[in-house]
Amino acid sequence: MELWYTEKHTEDVKLSIRIDRELYSEESEFQRIDILESKEFGRIFTLDGLMMVTEKDEFIYHDMIVHVPMATNPNIKNVLVIGAGDGGTIRELTRYKSIEKIDMVEIDERVVEVCKKYLPKTACKLDEERVNIVYEDGLRFVRNKENEYDLIIVDSTDPFGPGEGLFTKEFYGNCYKALSEEGILVNQHESPYYEYYSRSMKDAHKKIQGIFEIHKVYQAHIPTYPSGHWLFGFASKKYDPIKDFDARSWENLGIKTKYYNTELHVGCFALPTYVNELLEGDTE
Amino acid sequence: MELWYTEKHTEDVKLSIRIDRELYSEESEFQRIDILESKEFGRIFTLDGLMMVTEKDEFIYHDMIVHVPMATNPNIKNVLVIGAGDGGTIRELTRYKSIEKIDMVEIDERVVEVCKKYLPKTACKLDEERVNIVYEDGLRFVRNKENEYDLIIVDSTDPFGPGEGLFTKEFYGNCYKALSEEGILVNQHESPYYEYYSRSMKDAHKKIQGIFEIHKVYQAHIPTYPSGHWLFGFASKKYDPIKDFDARSWENLGIKTKYYNTELHVGCFALPTYVNELLEGDTE
Repeated sequence: MELWYTEKHTEDVKLSIRIDRELYSEESEFQRIDILESKEFGRIFTLDGLMMVTEKDEFIYHDMIVHVPMATNPNIKNVLVIGAGDGGTIRELTRYKSIEKIDMVEIDERVVEVCKKYLPKTACKLDEERVNIVYEDGLRFVRNKENEYDLIIVDSTDPFGPGEGLFTKEFYGNCYKALSEEGILVNQHESPYYEYYSRSMKDAHKKIQGIFEIHKVYQAHIPTYPSGHWLFGFASKKYDPIKDFDARSWENLGIKTKYYNTELHVGCFALPTYVNELLEGDTE
Repeated sequence: MELWYTEKHTEDVKLSIRIDRELYSEESEFQRIDILESKEFGRIFTLDGLMMVTEKDEFIYHDMIVHVPMATNPNIKNVLVIGAGDGGTIRELTRYKSIEKIDMVEIDERVVEVCKKYLPKTACKLDEERVNIVYEDGLRFVRNKENEYDLIIVDSTDPFGPGEGLFTKEFYGNCYKALSEEGILVNQHESPYYEYYSRSMKDAHKKIQGIFEIHKVYQAHIPTYPSGHWLFGFASKKYDPIKDFDARSWENLGIKTKYYNTELHVGCFALPTYVNELLEGDTE
C-alpha cells in the first residue's frame, strides 16, 4: 500500500511524505490531532493537518527557539512557555540547571497526552519537577502577570485557528508586562518566502517592534516547514542577542547540540536582503 | 485540468508544484530538457526531471554562487564558469565592471539555446561581449589550463549523469592548476540534510580539502531544492572569505541584490553543528 501525507504549502505547492501507517487520530475540543509513522522522518505529529513536529528534524526548531535566548542571558531563572505541548521546547530548557521554574501554558490537554504517549523523545521532560503545566488559553494566562518571567517562549501554531490570539498586539503587550526588566520574548515567526506566511511574519514583527526596545529576527533551515526557511522573533527590554552575547559562558555549560552553536548564534541573525526589506516595509 | 510537476527528494519525500502547461521538452544528446510554466514559481527549467532553476527563486542561488567570491576578492579579472547554461551566474558576473573575461564551458549547447528562448530573465547576458561560450566537457576543458583564472565557478548539476566528472579529485586538481595565485574555486555543494545528497557533499568536501589551502562551506535557503538547505563550497589558495572580506569595498560598488548582503556574507559561513560534523567526519 502507498500512503502519503501531503501538506499544501500554498495552493500550488505541496510537500508529501511517505507514511508507513497512521498511529493515532482524534478530534479534540480545539483541533484535529494526528500521529503518523514514516521512514524518512520517524514519527510525525500534525494539528489540523499541518506539520508540527517530526522526530528527525525537530532538533532544529527546538534548538533555535531555546538556546538563542538562553545563551544571550545565562541568568534566566523563570520561564513561561506558551503552546509547546509536544514537549521539545521544555526538554531543551530543562538542560539548564540555572532555570528554577518553567510554567507551560497549553490550551489543549489532549496534545500533551498524545505526545507523551507517541513522541516520548520530545515529551520526555514534561513531568520534570521544575515544570508546571497549566491548561489554559495563553492569551488569557498572561493577562494578569506582571514582572514574573525572564523569558517567554511562544511556541505556537500558525496564526490561524487556536493560535490566532498569540499573534495580536494585546498579547505581545501583556508579554511585555509579564516580563522582568531583563525579559526576553522569543516566538516562532513564520516563513518569509511564501506570501501567505510572510504576511503573518511582517504583521507579527510590526506589532512587536511597537512594544519592545530590542526586536530582531533570526532564521533556521527546517526541511519539513513551508519553503524550509523559518524565522524566529527575538524581542527584549535590555539584552541584545549579538552585543550582549558571551559565547564562552555558554560553551562552558557543556550543552551538546545538533543544530545550535555559538557561531551560528551570530550568523542566524544575518538575514537575506529581501527578508530585511519585508521586515522594514509597511504592513498593508 | 490539474498538472503537477513532482520531484522526489528521496524515495519517501516529494515536492510538487502546480503547472499551468509545459512550454517545451526535448531529449538532447546529453539529457532531457523541460520548461514548465507555473503560477507559484514562474517558469521552471529541469534537466532529467530534476529542478534546476525557477524564475521566482533563482536569485538566491545565483546571488550566493557569484557575490560571495566576488566580494572576497574585488580584483577578480578572469573567470571560468563550468555549466551554468541557464545564464543566471553569467548575468550576476557581468554586473562587475572589473571583470575582463568570462569563459563559460557548457557541455550541452541545447541547454543554452532553450534557456535563451524560454528564460530570458536569466539568459539575458549570455551574448555580452566579455562572455566566451565553449561547448565542451568542463572536465576536459580545464585539463590543459594553467594559471589562467582568478575565479572558477562550478555551477553543475548533481553528481549523477553529465555532472559526475565535476565532483572528482582529478577535476578539482585541474581547477587548482588553472587558477592564479589569487585563485578562488566556488562550487554548488549539494544539501546536508537528506543522506543521498549529504554523501555527495561530504565526498566533494574531502576531495577539495586535500587540494586547496583554504576550504570552507556556506549555506543558503533555496525553497525549490531538496530540504531547502543548500550548500556552496569556497576553496582558495590565498583568500579567506571572512578574514579577507572588506564589506565597505563591495558596498561601494552599488550592486543591488535581493538575497546577498555583506552581513549575510559572514553569517552564511556559520553552519549548524550537524553539518560541521558531517564535513569534518570521514567519508566511507
